[in-house]
Amino acid sequence: MNKIDYIARQLARAENKRFEHYVVTRIWHLLNDLSIKFVTQQYVTRPQGRALTDMFFPQLQTHIEIDEGHHKKLIEWDKLREADIINATEHEIIRIDVTQHIEQINRDIDEVVSRLKDKKKEKPTDFTAWDLEAEQNPRTYIERGYIDLKDDVAFKTCIDAANCFGNNYKPRGIWTGAAKHPKETGKIIWFPKLYKNGEWNNRISDDETVIWEINEFPEKAKVAIDHWIKSEIHNRIVFPRVKSPLGDVMYRFKGEYELDLQATNYQQGLVWKRVSERVKTYPSD
Amino acid sequence: MNKIDYIARQLARAENKRFEHYVVTRIWHLLNDLSIKFVTQQYVTRPQGRALTDMFFPQLQTHIEIDEGHHKKLIEWDKLREADIINATEHEIIRIDVTQHIEQINRDIDEVVSRLKDKKKEKPTDFTAWDLEAEQNPRTYIERGYIDLKDDVAFKTCIDAANCFGNNYKPRGIWTGAAKHPKETGKIIWFPKLYKNGEWNNRISDDETVIWEINEFPEKAKVAIDHWIKSEIHNRIVFPRVKSPLGDVMYRFKGEYELDLQATNYQQGLVWKRVSERVKTYPSD
Repeated sequence: MNKIDYIARQLARAENKRFEHYVVTRIWHLLNDLSIKFVTQQYVTRPQGRALTDMFFPQLQTHIEIDEGHHKKLIEWDKLREADIINATEHEIIRIDVTQHIEQINRDIDEVVSRLKDKKKEKPTDFTAWDLEAEQNPRTYIERGYIDLKDDVAFKTCIDAANCFGNNYKPRGIWTGAAKHPKETGKIIWFPKLYKNGEWNNRISDDETVIWEINEFPEKAKVAIDHWIKSEIHNRIVFPRVKSPLGDVMYRFKGEYELDLQATNYQQGLVWKRVSERVKTYPSD
Repeated sequence: MNKIDYIARQLARAENKRFEHYVVTRIWHLLNDLSIKFVTQQYVTRPQGRALTDMFFPQLQTHIEIDEGHHKKLIEWDKLREADIINATEHEIIRIDVTQHIEQINRDIDEVVSRLKDKKKEKPTDFTAWDLEAEQNPRTYIERGYIDLKDDVAFKTCIDAANCFGNNYKPRGIWTGAAKHPKETGKIIWFPKLYKNGEWNNRISDDETVIWEINEFPEKAKVAIDHWIKSEIHNRIVFPRVKSPLGDVMYRFKGEYELDLQATNYQQGLVWKRVSERVKTYPSD
């Protein structure tokens, strides 16, 4: 997918919400900067709970919410269990009231566009120009030396994610579960589904600091729990499988989690707590 | 319908054509001029035949066609018999090739936007700012003294059209057919369906200079033809009933037509030839 295709697909998504569509296309075209990435209809978690924002600028950690003056349709979370939900706790949310006259809406959008341009200028060293190919290429992160939660990293395959840590897997076959970490002991790279799938009943807390992993059959749960407690691998770099806003499968970096031996039991299952938002990357030998 | 609603509805229409959508929204937001009207997906007749243009600026008599590099879906004219089809013979058509890189597409759009701005400047006296309410209000045309084909005039009701010529009809009841012209003799205002409807089989030529009117039952056709030939009313100001691009019914001004006595016969039906693209308007007494 190239940039024009990505942008056109993103801009065309709001088809049933006309004012949202007007605002989203206007912000994008007036911002007029191909180095800035955007996502429409991004699911987020915030301290107040989960939400859907209308336009998200990952590099600027800023969201636009369009207020149409009536209650938004409730989000059917059950249907969206696979959705890519990012943590927006420290992000800025800008609201635009589209119940006003068009002249006022246009002035408000001009202000938002100025604000976004200023935000880019405020981070002269920190800002990495949007590069669709590079952002999904393990080489980018190996050269950078780390993957950080703030960088909003998602790969198209488990292999790409695994290869950021010294692996050299070739793209073939179907992957599930986990990959070894050849450079750090006691650690694997994990690609879970963080929702009920088959006999597994995994979930993640709204603030994304805790993951619960449990089999719905008590005997099987027990075997797995005993296995991991006894094993020497108590740390996992986690890339859950999610569906992107455009519907593609992605593996989204969530951080490094460690087995919490005190919280883990046969009722709760394995409890993993986040211990780092940044992990080191390695070239393969 | 206010301007934001109109604009948002127009911009949201290209939902299944992503590149068209990108170009249309970009031209609109960069043009950034609420005094300029636009229509998306306008049906037109040209010397080469009928077509659908992606974006139409009535005041500037300019159309944008987006070339996606593959054959456009054939227009199913049968299904669109009620469509509002305007004559674009002397209009400019600007093509945009969206198979190029996004940087080049953006440069091409910048050029189009400059061209549109220049076109507005080139007609300092001739340009009337877009006013959604005024353009559908008979008073506008009564004050102007005329209705011209070039001004792209369409009314929401037959009553509004009839009241441009000295009538003072109130908005009630269902209207069909025609209205009297109280200010000019030998003339009526006609609101035909220019496609097969019921037992009438009317049509208009692609260049819109000829209208054929005939009943499919030979006896009834004969009665109507004899009636109009013998009558003293041989001129009609014509506002056919059409569906606007947004799906609303409208009565679109096509000019003044005169009964062509030589061409009219029982096989062809009544043949009306356009004799004027501009007609005088009158206040009511």
